[in-house]
Amino acid sequence: MEAHSFFLQLLIILLTARLFAEIATRLKAPSVIGELLAGVVLGPSLLGFLAPSEVFQLLAEVGIILLLFDVGLDTDVRRLAHAGSRAAVVAVVGFLLPFLLGFGVSHGLFGFPLLPALFIGGTLTATSIGITLRVLTDLHRRDTPEAQVVLGAAVIDDILGVVLLALLYDFSTSGGISLINAGQVLFFIGIFFALAPFAARIISLVIRHFDTLSETPGLIPTSVVSLVLFFAWLAHAVGAPELLGGFAAGLALSRRFFLPFGVALHQDPDFAHRIENQLRPIAQLFTPIFFVMVGLSLDLRAIDWGEILIWGLSLSLLLAAALGKLSAALVVSGTLHERLAIGLAMLPRGEVGLIFAELGQKSGILNPNVYAALVIVIAMTTLAAPLLLKRHYARIPRIREQLRLAAVGVGGARMIRGEAAFPSFGTVRK
Amino acid sequence: MEAHSFFLQLLIILLTARLFAEIATRLKAPSVIGELLAGVVLGPSLLGFLAPSEVFQLLAEVGIILLLFDVGLDTDVRRLAHAGSRAAVVAVVGFLLPFLLGFGVSHGLFGFPLLPALFIGGTLTATSIGITLRVLTDLHRRDTPEAQVVLGAAVIDDILGVVLLALLYDFSTSGGISLINAGQVLFFIGIFFALAPFAARIISLVIRHFDTLSETPGLIPTSVVSLVLFFAWLAHAVGAPELLGGFAAGLALSRRFFLPFGVALHQDPDFAHRIENQLRPIAQLFTPIFFVMVGLSLDLRAIDWGEILIWGLSLSLLLAAALGKLSAALVVSGTLHERLAIGLAMLPRGEVGLIFAELGQKSGILNPNVYAALVIVIAMTTLAAPLLLKRHYARIPRIREQLRLAAVGVGGARMIRGEAAFPSFGTVRK
Repeated sequence: MEAHSFFLQLLIILLTARLFAEIATRLKAPSVIGELLAGVVLGPSLLGFLAPSEVFQLLAEVGIILLLFDVGLDTDVRRLAHAGSRAAVVAVVGFLLPFLLGFGVSHGLFGFPLLPALFIGGTLTATSIGITLRVLTDLHRRDTPEAQVVLGAAVIDDILGVVLLALLYDFSTSGGISLINAGQVLFFIGIFFALAPFAARIISLVIRHFDTLSETPGLIPTSVVSLVLFFAWLAHAVGAPELLGGFAAGLALSRRFFLPFGVALHQDPDFAHRIENQLRPIAQLFTPIFFVMVGLSLDLRAIDWGEILIWGLSLSLLLAAALGKLSAALVVSGTLHERLAIGLAMLPRGEVGLIFAELGQKSGILNPNVYAALVIVIAMTTLAAPLLLKRHYARIPRIREQLRLAAVGVGGARMIRGEAAFPSFGTVRK
Repeated sequence: MEAHSFFLQLLIILLTARLFAEIATRLKAPSVIGELLAGVVLGPSLLGFLAPSEVFQLLAEVGIILLLFDVGLDTDVRRLAHAGSRAAVVAVVGFLLPFLLGFGVSHGLFGFPLLPALFIGGTLTATSIGITLRVLTDLHRRDTPEAQVVLGAAVIDDILGVVLLALLYDFSTSGGISLINAGQVLFFIGIFFALAPFAARIISLVIRHFDTLSETPGLIPTSVVSLVLFFAWLAHAVGAPELLGGFAAGLALSRRFFLPFGVALHQDPDFAHRIENQLRPIAQLFTPIFFVMVGLSLDLRAIDWGEILIWGLSLSLLLAAALGKLSAALVVSGTLHERLAIGLAMLPRGEVGLIFAELGQKSGILNPNVYAALVIVIAMTTLAAPLLLKRHYARIPRIREQLRLAAVGVGGARMIRGEAAFPSFGTVRK
């Protein structure tokens, strides 16, 4: 690609994403919807102006890991840990139910053989962290307790999804299932998540040290982006999705990173603030590219819309996907309003689901029609969830909302003093 | 390329550039030297770890236009205009002399035919704005009067170089020279430079307007980067190097942009400040990629170092290139110290020179040995100029320097009141 046509394509991606995001906001929809639609409009579905080329695919990957880094920066580890048990329940149930329902629908109802049915079930398991968190951010809900549950659950079910993928991939190539391989993947991911934030934290102290010494400007953008890229690469090396590496790095550099080891690695709010100020514009530049590329990868024209099977299968799977996640959320404690919000936020399927579907198609396990049905399901959950979630939040009366936020404020203050946080939800649970 | 190996390569580029830049600074050399050497070390010359791939080439192009944008942001249009006549003289003489000397050396001394000799002369004409300005920035001299002359002259000789390239390209393909074509290129570039800053300024007001309205964060990074990309694309469309588009956009968004039309497009220092704060980290992230890629493109191993012709030719051309630019600087008014600084700063040849050499090689006009000699000349001017310039500036006694800066301060204050600026240099000139 020539530089000038790359410039033109990049600016069209950025401007169209922004234009559609602004229109979406005016129409009271989350802006991420606009960015996804920008991709659909520019891509093969409508204008055919852009084909998914390698360079934009790679910039999109940088966008998604920087988004997760940004989410990590804003995450309060204590609150995330507090949401831990509820998040784990939502994740495990929300992983198993869609898998079993998807498998049941395709194997029992539509008569697919074992392996394709397992792949179809797998496609429905993992929540798209990227889309879910963008929606919660768009709705100014990223700091709510339910957002913490969703974040924790999405991270966990991404990991479970990847382990399942390793299992199914083994099964599809060797005909058997190697629990040792899957155990290994799980072990490495566990080690990674246990150690990565501490390693990243230590590296960040090295960066801070050099930042005070360096005479050449630009140390923070280059070295922090390198840190994020390194952890994304490391995540991939242990078998986890790259974006989880970005999240781990963000968590470690967050102002509210909680260290059990205490004093030695003390916080420096000023440095954390500088990192936020300098990295946020970079993340904001790259992130829309990711969502446009997701929209671009949906070729709505390639789907044979006349085929009955596609509609029947996608509708059944959509039902399975939605029911599975909503039931998972209803299992945990909390107000009905909160649990519904969690369920709706868990709806979008994204990256890991697409990896399942693509691997299934490439290896010949899934035929093009089934692949199309899966893409429709992923697209529908991705486009519907933000709208449903927005409508859901709009229902809560403002006065109750303010009371609730005040309670969270009390919880936050207590948390700082080391007391149990979120007493209001504690009361609800009892 | 897979995402994870892209991440790894990108982080190695960023970290090696930073490491070598820091080492260069410790050794009292400008940091850009470190970044260029990082490319040499990582590239085919030494480790062979990285090959120049499309995606990094494109990111490097973004880096150079963002660097020029950043330079434009920092440029005071009044002072640039004030340097105008001296800059024009330096540019024209510094364009003609290296061209004639280079042509003379290769045609007269080495007996090359007309066309190759013209290409060799052309390669020596254009100063590398990117490297020159990075060096002046590294030395904290970007605000000096001589830097204004260098900036103006580098912009002008880049344009002259491109016009010459258009002429020679015509000549090499059709055997004749079309002055109409060259005139057209010059006309479009003139129109572009006359109108681009105003157009960019108006667009920036639109951006500011939407910035106050938008609820989706990230408007400034995406829209300003789009603006820069658009002007780079536009510059290419009129036949100018893309980086001049980035410079024009930066000039227009600068805090010190001077508008003859007056009141309607009034300044907003807060908005300009926000743009600087948000765009600088992005430019700092991309810029090192450019310099690493320049280093990477030099394959020192591919050169047949035993060939006498290469050495004789490169030494003669190096002399021609250096003499041409230094003489051009000595022609204008100013102190000897200042004129020498201008001459040294004009030494580095870069992008346009490489385009000449590559076009000559690809079209078969230059054989590989001549190409190697030209690359050596470009590399030597690029690596030597920063060191010479640093040494030159180190010579000036501190007390005189402080007096000089005080005089510039007075000049600046007078300039604001509309009086003639830089009286100290005016005195010297009389």
